[in-house]
Amino acid sequence: MSSRLRHLTTLENLSRSTIERLLDRAVALRDACAHGTRKIDMLSGRTVLNLFFEPSTRTRTSFELAARRLGADVVNFDIGFSSANKGEELYDTLHTLEAMHLDAIVVRHKESGTPDELVRHAMSGVSVINAGDGNRAHPTQGLLDLLTIRQHRPDFENLSVVICGDVKHSRVARSDVHALAAMGVPDIRLCGPAALMPETAEFPQCRFFDDFDRAIEGVDAVIMLRLQKERMAQTELPDEAAYFRQFGLDTRRLALARKGCLVMHPGPINRGIEIAPDVADGAQSRILEQVGNGVFTRMAVLSELLAR
Amino acid sequence: MSSRLRHLTTLENLSRSTIERLLDRAVALRDACAHGTRKIDMLSGRTVLNLFFEPSTRTRTSFELAARRLGADVVNFDIGFSSANKGEELYDTLHTLEAMHLDAIVVRHKESGTPDELVRHAMSGVSVINAGDGNRAHPTQGLLDLLTIRQHRPDFENLSVVICGDVKHSRVARSDVHALAAMGVPDIRLCGPAALMPETAEFPQCRFFDDFDRAIEGVDAVIMLRLQKERMAQTELPDEAAYFRQFGLDTRRLALARKGCLVMHPGPINRGIEIAPDVADGAQSRILEQVGNGVFTRMAVLSELLAR
Amino acid sequence: MSSRLRHLTTLENLSRSTIERLLDRAVALRDACAHGTRKIDMLSGRTVLNLFFEPSTRTRTSFELAARRLGADVVNFDIGFSSANKGEELYDTLHTLEAMHLDAIVVRHKESGTPDELVRHAMSGVSVINAGDGNRAHPTQGLLDLLTIRQHRPDFENLSVVICGDVKHSRVARSDVHALAAMGVPDIRLCGPAALMPETAEFPQCRFFDDFDRAIEGVDAVIMLRLQKERMAQTELPDEAAYFRQFGLDTRRLALARKGCLVMHPGPINRGIEIAPDVADGAQSRILEQVGNGVFTRMAVLSELLAR
Repeated sequence: MSSRLRHLTTLENLSRSTIERLLDRAVALRDACAHGTRKIDMLSGRTVLNLFFEPSTRTRTSFELAARRLGADVVNFDIGFSSANKGEELYDTLHTLEAMHLDAIVVRHKESGTPDELVRHAMSGVSVINAGDGNRAHPTQGLLDLLTIRQHRPDFENLSVVICGDVKHSRVARSDVHALAAMGVPDIRLCGPAALMPETAEFPQCRFFDDFDRAIEGVDAVIMLRLQKERMAQTELPDEAAYFRQFGLDTRRLALARKGCLVMHPGPINRGIEIAPDVADGAQSRILEQVGNGVFTRMAVLSELLAR
Repeated sequence: MSSRLRHLTTLENLSRSTIERLLDRAVALRDACAHGTRKIDMLSGRTVLNLFFEPSTRTRTSFELAARRLGADVVNFDIGFSSANKGEELYDTLHTLEAMHLDAIVVRHKESGTPDELVRHAMSGVSVINAGDGNRAHPTQGLLDLLTIRQHRPDFENLSVVICGDVKHSRVARSDVHALAAMGVPDIRLCGPAALMPETAEFPQCRFFDDFDRAIEGVDAVIMLRLQKERMAQTELPDEAAYFRQFGLDTRRLALARKGCLVMHPGPINRGIEIAPDVADGAQSRILEQVGNGVFTRMAVLSELLAR
Repeated sequence: MSSRLRHLTTLENLSRSTIERLLDRAVALRDACAHGTRKIDMLSGRTVLNLFFEPSTRTRTSFELAARRLGADVVNFDIGFSSANKGEELYDTLHTLEAMHLDAIVVRHKESGTPDELVRHAMSGVSVINAGDGNRAHPTQGLLDLLTIRQHRPDFENLSVVICGDVKHSRVARSDVHALAAMGVPDIRLCGPAALMPETAEFPQCRFFDDFDRAIEGVDAVIMLRLQKERMAQTELPDEAAYFRQFGLDTRRLALARKGCLVMHPGPINRGIEIAPDVADGAQSRILEQVGNGVFTRMAVLSELLAR
């Protein structure tokens, strides 16, 4: 049996049994909520602090709901998004917050590695949960994607999954690959325009594609990434119509995948750019299921980290 | 007996008995609170989301307090006020929030009709409460105004009420007229400068005035509207001194109303522009009573919509 | 026995016994929390409103945690920081909030005296707590500093304390002096550059210094003030290196104080400007202890003011 986690900054190095324990816990919480237990006072008296250096209403709200449904108090510490908040200043903020006796800090930061720096500098028993750092990791997204796949395709050893879009800058893609690899998924494919693809050396467990028609062939699940227009310079922005033709998911392309292929997206979606509206809203779409699983996954993580 | 409401987007088409049930419920909640019951755990485990596309600390705070005092959790989803948030993007946000298993969404939006669009596009059992949409409706304000009038002048069949100011752009005026008409108030008067008056065809149940001295004559209640300077173009702004002379409420003018006439205003007030300070703070002012009733009215609406 | 406080806007005129009661209460709450009682439902059903006209995530979070740990509901009323919010407009906001039946308003405002104006204009039983007004007072900071000193140097009658930095503009310095004087501390020293020192007439109970080496000699505690660069005009900004040489606290200078001298700072610290990093993080630093005591002090104040 693997030991209890104290922090969650990345899915790298997590064992399959630890990941399965977290998924099982999420399912148990989902079942409890489905049977009318709207509030589980497992974390009554504990305090979770949302420390978001990047704006994110969706993920922040998901964590906030997860913590409240476990009976925890939630405090949103709204840091100025413009200031650097690096180095000593960041650690002083951390130590100040720790001194207020918090139980968990949920952190999002545009610099990769910030959550691990917080773990290294933490002085008290506070747990650090990464809600997305740079292009490095978004572990709860990785877990909720895995949970969504598992409830439809539990046979991980025989699975093919393609992740398509701006893989290079995507922390979602990285955490998804870590999660899928840990579960023994044998066929993980990455697809995107050359300029938005990572070095092959970074993903030895994946196959690289630049032709989405070939990449999607026979897969059990397709994870579309958001084209993060807000992070791109004007010159980096691909022509949207051309992008959609080459790397967008429409019904014709989806038909190349395995029958019943799961359609996933971390949201918010750009309709008509990376995904056609009728696919986003179609019968195979699991996008809203992902959102619902997100709350239960975060409840599972919080209860794993904070339960006495 | 009228059936339980599921949404509240407007007071139009609400029956008198439904409105009276909501007012009675607000009174019962006010009485419970007056007798020391500070917290009524009727909505424990339920989640209310404040989705404000227009800034409004007062109304948002009123809804937040109402929900908390019923034991519900409240999440403020702070959407960027600048972005359009229309159409598909709005529905995707709605569906994302629904997928997090919310019970009610309290929405304010500058576009008239947005709450009804949310109702039409909602997929789950979420209740939508309109906290003000464009110039169309502000139903909880209409109810709280009615509650305030009822506790002093319960004889609606014999009532005269005047609403004065920028009626054309006022969602408060519209919901007040809907509320008063539903209760059978026979004499509803609208008064304001020609440029700020609506088409007469929109309000067949009302009498139109451009002379406030005549409009206020003998009324039981006067509802002053806020001159919404922040929404007007520079050229639309009336001269404030001239506006006050013609359409402001001072003691001389108030004396033309019926003895003990109720003075009401949705707030925040512009002192010396639409109302004289000594009238706003005077013995006949019900302005702060309206604020207090606002919390109880919103508790009544939330409990009507969300109680099992 | 001194009577129960209803508001806390300043420490001036508070008796020693009242202050000691608050400190004792903070210690009792700290002990209760240390023994695992994470939540004390003393203020269940009460509502505390944070009304911050100046941004302050640290102090606001500290008050929010304090209120929640006593079981109170907390509402953050985010007022526009740019608008004047003075005079009638401020009182109308106050009265509106009172009409929503709040129990306490925690207020921060850049104008000195605002909390007392709120007390004078309050109409209901609401308690006003000053979270910092202009350069005048920050009473909970004064109390938490006193609590921090007392747990290491309880013998106030024999104490020497120096406060160093921009004393002139510091509400922390003023509340610290009020607190120390009330407890009978015989030797309170103020030190800073001439341009940043107050009139001697304002602090008859203090000794003034412009030479930090002499001011720190033999003291039991040194309270460093934050150089509030964000409030200074470009021309007022001292040269940082020169400032540190003359008024910064480093190990050489700390060695001039009494052995074991407490090092304190209200935070957030400017490392290398008013304090050397190795002193801020050193064995004598009580800075994080102050932060922890801040939550318990605010719990003590809230329970004093709001308990029935």
